Amino acid sequence: MTKALRREIDFMLYDWLGVERLSELPDFEGQDRSDWDAFLDLSGEIAWNELLPCYKAADREEPWLDDGQVRVQPQLAQALRVYLDAGLHQATARPDVGGMGLPFTIATAATAEVMAANVAGSGFIMLSVANTRLLTDHGTPAQIAAFARPQLEGNALGTMCLSEPDTGSSLGDVTTRAYPEDDDELGPRYRLSGRKMWISGGDQDVTGNVIHLVLAKVVQPDGSVIPGAKGTTLFIVPKLLPGGERNDLFVAGLNHKMGYRGTPNCLLNFGENGGATAWRLGAEGDGLRIMFDMMNEARVNVGLSGAAMAYRGFDLARQYAQERVQGRSVLDRAAERPVPIIRHPDVRRMLLVQKAIAEGALALCLKGAFLKDAVSHAPEEAERRRMHDLLSLLTPVIKSWPSEQGLVALHHAIQVHGGYGYTRDFDVEQLYRDSRLNPIHEGTTGIQAIDLLGRKILSEKGESLTALLELIRHETRTGQGMEGEAATLLELCDWFEEVAAFLLRGGSKGLALANATGFLEGVGHFVVAWIWLALARAADAHPDPEFAEEKRWTCRYFYAAEVPRIRSMMALLVSAPRLVAELPDHVVSP
Amino acid sequence: MTKALRREIDFMLYDWLGVERLSELPDFEGQDRSDWDAFLDLSGEIAWNELLPCYKAADREEPWLDDGQVRVQPQLAQALRVYLDAGLHQATARPDVGGMGLPFTIATAATAEVMAANVAGSGFIMLSVANTRLLTDHGTPAQIAAFARPQLEGNALGTMCLSEPDTGSSLGDVTTRAYPEDDDELGPRYRLSGRKMWISGGDQDVTGNVIHLVLAKVVQPDGSVIPGAKGTTLFIVPKLLPGGERNDLFVAGLNHKMGYRGTPNCLLNFGENGGATAWRLGAEGDGLRIMFDMMNEARVNVGLSGAAMAYRGFDLARQYAQERVQGRSVLDRAAERPVPIIRHPDVRRMLLVQKAIAEGALALCLKGAFLKDAVSHAPEEAERRRMHDLLSLLTPVIKSWPSEQGLVALHHAIQVHGGYGYTRDFDVEQLYRDSRLNPIHEGTTGIQAIDLLGRKILSEKGESLTALLELIRHETRTGQGMEGEAATLLELCDWFEEVAAFLLRGGSKGLALANATGFLEGVGHFVVAWIWLALARAADAHPDPEFAEEKRWTCRYFYAAEVPRIRSMMALLVSAPRLVAELPDHVVSP
Repeated sequence: MTKALRREIDFMLYDWLGVERLSELPDFEGQDRSDWDAFLDLSGEIAWNELLPCYKAADREEPWLDDGQVRVQPQLAQALRVYLDAGLHQATARPDVGGMGLPFTIATAATAEVMAANVAGSGFIMLSVANTRLLTDHGTPAQIAAFARPQLEGNALGTMCLSEPDTGSSLGDVTTRAYPEDDDELGPRYRLSGRKMWISGGDQDVTGNVIHLVLAKVVQPDGSVIPGAKGTTLFIVPKLLPGGERNDLFVAGLNHKMGYRGTPNCLLNFGENGGATAWRLGAEGDGLRIMFDMMNEARVNVGLSGAAMAYRGFDLARQYAQERVQGRSVLDRAAERPVPIIRHPDVRRMLLVQKAIAEGALALCLKGAFLKDAVSHAPEEAERRRMHDLLSLLTPVIKSWPSEQGLVALHHAIQVHGGYGYTRDFDVEQLYRDSRLNPIHEGTTGIQAIDLLGRKILSEKGESLTALLELIRHETRTGQGMEGEAATLLELCDWFEEVAAFLLRGGSKGLALANATGFLEGVGHFVVAWIWLALARAADAHPDPEFAEEKRWTCRYFYAAEVPRIRSMMALLVSAPRLVAELPDHVVSP
Repeated sequence: MTKALRREIDFMLYDWLGVERLSELPDFEGQDRSDWDAFLDLSGEIAWNELLPCYKAADREEPWLDDGQVRVQPQLAQALRVYLDAGLHQATARPDVGGMGLPFTIATAATAEVMAANVAGSGFIMLSVANTRLLTDHGTPAQIAAFARPQLEGNALGTMCLSEPDTGSSLGDVTTRAYPEDDDELGPRYRLSGRKMWISGGDQDVTGNVIHLVLAKVVQPDGSVIPGAKGTTLFIVPKLLPGGERNDLFVAGLNHKMGYRGTPNCLLNFGENGGATAWRLGAEGDGLRIMFDMMNEARVNVGLSGAAMAYRGFDLARQYAQERVQGRSVLDRAAERPVPIIRHPDVRRMLLVQKAIAEGALALCLKGAFLKDAVSHAPEEAERRRMHDLLSLLTPVIKSWPSEQGLVALHHAIQVHGGYGYTRDFDVEQLYRDSRLNPIHEGTTGIQAIDLLGRKILSEKGESLTALLELIRHETRTGQGMEGEAATLLELCDWFEEVAAFLLRGGSKGLALANATGFLEGVGHFVVAWIWLALARAADAHPDPEFAEEKRWTCRYFYAAEVPRIRSMMALLVSAPRLVAELPDHVVSP
């Protein structure tokens, strides 16, 4: 497994994306492939040697509450300590605050292996990395020293506290309240109280401290709060205060989930004894805006975990298919002896589906990370803006396509295993359960769809989409080989242009948004079709002709079997947009 | 819930299928709707009042081995006793052997409620009912008295023992052996030894005895066995022998599954101490043929459980969507207050998908059961044969469509619940895990596909398919309303006729079979499109105009959103049949 996934990563980084170009940017001066390979080697070693061995154990033995303190499965806690002690979580943090300053693309590639090995383990780290970045980007030097440094040094992990029991995706309605108190050396101080739900890593015993970033509303002098998103503010609420004393926050309960069981998922009560001490991060009213930087990073990570788990499932399925002997192939019914099931065409098809999804999703996520590097590090403002708009358009696709399609891939991974794949003795069973979270957390697929169609296309009059279509057309014109596939992709560009024009002309934004999910699905398949053609082209130059052939066949499969689905995914939007919007209540009400 | 599912069942039985016509058949003389309603009432009561309350408990507390004896979660064991004591499992058994002689259609409808309430509980019963039928159909009077009667009287449950650790779907290769011993009053007696895997209800403490039907090969005088399917024979192997002493068979282990946890799934060792006592059922070499009667019944039951669980998930999701308040609708962004999420178009769409799948799948299974009644009870031989061929063609669709699509529906049921749906506090989480077994057991989806395309279409030169298309055309011509949908269905009939002709002409059966799964998916959607049009037509006459409107909208949804997927499901088969068959090994090998 180590080598299989790493081989894909190396190809995507160096042969496809050409990530070595990043060395030319001022922010990465002095770094080269040997540094990045060393980082990938170390991260891969810890993933496969430390985190993978406790994948099942952390599922069986869920986190538990021990006198108010959450305990994590000991082997997993130990593996996470090894990861933190190696400093791998510092990868993309700025050097001036103690980070390694590596490209986001390299860190993302390394994270893919960590997630493939143990997604529940990766959960602790990813949230802390994103939390640290918010602190270093928006915090004062004193806040960075007090709350980001301990995370960078491996002495604390961070969380994001957004949802509440009655406020899941609707964050403008949070009921957590912050009462202004005083200013001190760590910034404006408040007393905060409220309940936060679904807090991954909300407490743990891997590190001594936990740094929460909490979304709340400031209570105005007249006792009111500002309604909606513009009334939200972000607060730093550490479990242990800088002096070491316990802050006023407690774990009220743990959720018991279908999968992702190694990561504690907490209900946190803040301020039941007078109010938790909280320092404001950024300005009042900027809470959701700041949080969304973190959210976008978290969304790419959810997509990445979908890709990584799909890849691991694929790898397990193809190993199993080669070892398991059963039945005769339909292509050779007269065979005397049973064959390894990889000889059965339907098993080969299921492996090909998994390969197309897993590698396509991984490439999509690495593309997103590469765009993020351009957004953060390109010297030209115009280039940064262009890349920002493109990444912004693609983020809901990067979040949702690997999440939804990763489940399809793992469905097939289980099918290849037959009854064994349904038992808890085989990792594909757990990968399937773990992956089922992905279409939910950090914004459901439905939320991503409204983000894509509403915020990223309709509100911008389709400008980003036009830019994406131009980019795809430009790349496709210069391509060689796969002529039929290239022609199909260009036709799809025209078609999506027409659909967008139809939607922009249509008048009723609500009516379009009512059918947004099909649009997201269709765009996802379209974007991955673009990526597969690019992967096949990049592989043409690969020294191993079998490698090139492998990518060409998978690309061909994607165009033959998956691309024809695009129009039907969008059938409601294009042909029957009123069907859902005008549905009489009694049809779906109990 | 009770009323919701029962309302659909009543509509399908009486308004759509016109099941009352069965009263006119000699075998059902004297029965009428009041008898059937009383049976449905009692079964529903036990389902909702006894089996549903232990749905979660039986998942949490898996069966365990207690000194060689499997123990079942006590509440579930108690609920099963209530079911058996009420004699509900005798529904379709012949009156002359102690059964109720009810129509298969009525029993199937009742079973849907049992499965919706507690699928693991239903597992014990369904296998025993099918086992009993094999015994009464193929056994001698002495065998029926010794092994079927105890099941009918609720003192034993039956199993089917086919798979072995190295022989899952390839039953002609079983390694269990039977050595002829002697004849006694129970028939030809053998000593049997071997290991059987995946045996649901392989042991339990609900009833005193367990009657196994075991597939094995008879050892010939020269020590050889006959290779392949024609060498298989079926044996009756009771846990306790008629004299009360323990037979030579033991539970070697229990599988720990993703779901369906209430049903013990056993590895059984037969004959480790000299050979288990076994009596032959039917003739030598007839094992697989006889077993397939049972298998076909089991396959319809798998489909039924997929439909039933999808329906329960739908019902839970629509209740939740009406209670949960969050966010503003995209159709009315200016709303001041958050709305119940059922106001969000995407939530309504997800409920509509679930409704279309759950009700379409349930109707499909009831149609199958109705055909089975015709096969068994129609007075005319020609009619019986016609119905047999149609049921035989539809069986792989009835098994696989509700299994695969039921998971799609439950995926959406979880999405509607958001993060809560991913926790073990909500039944949709368990329904999803339980349902994941359906595409595997009693023949995977891939096996069903080969059965449909290879055995039911190519081997019969498409005759059954032609008969199905004629039936659909006939029904559709006489229909009123839904003109657009009817025209689409007729076009699809022409298209499937062309595809079948193309496949039959194609020459390479292997090449067609290599793409059989897409064909099965496409046929499944086509058959359910036919069913939805028929349901909408039947509902037109319903006294409640809202009920009629509900079926029309769902039918419209199916044609607008699902029917367009059919051609893309079959894209590989039609446009790129060689892609999978000619795939170079290294593309999917590790």
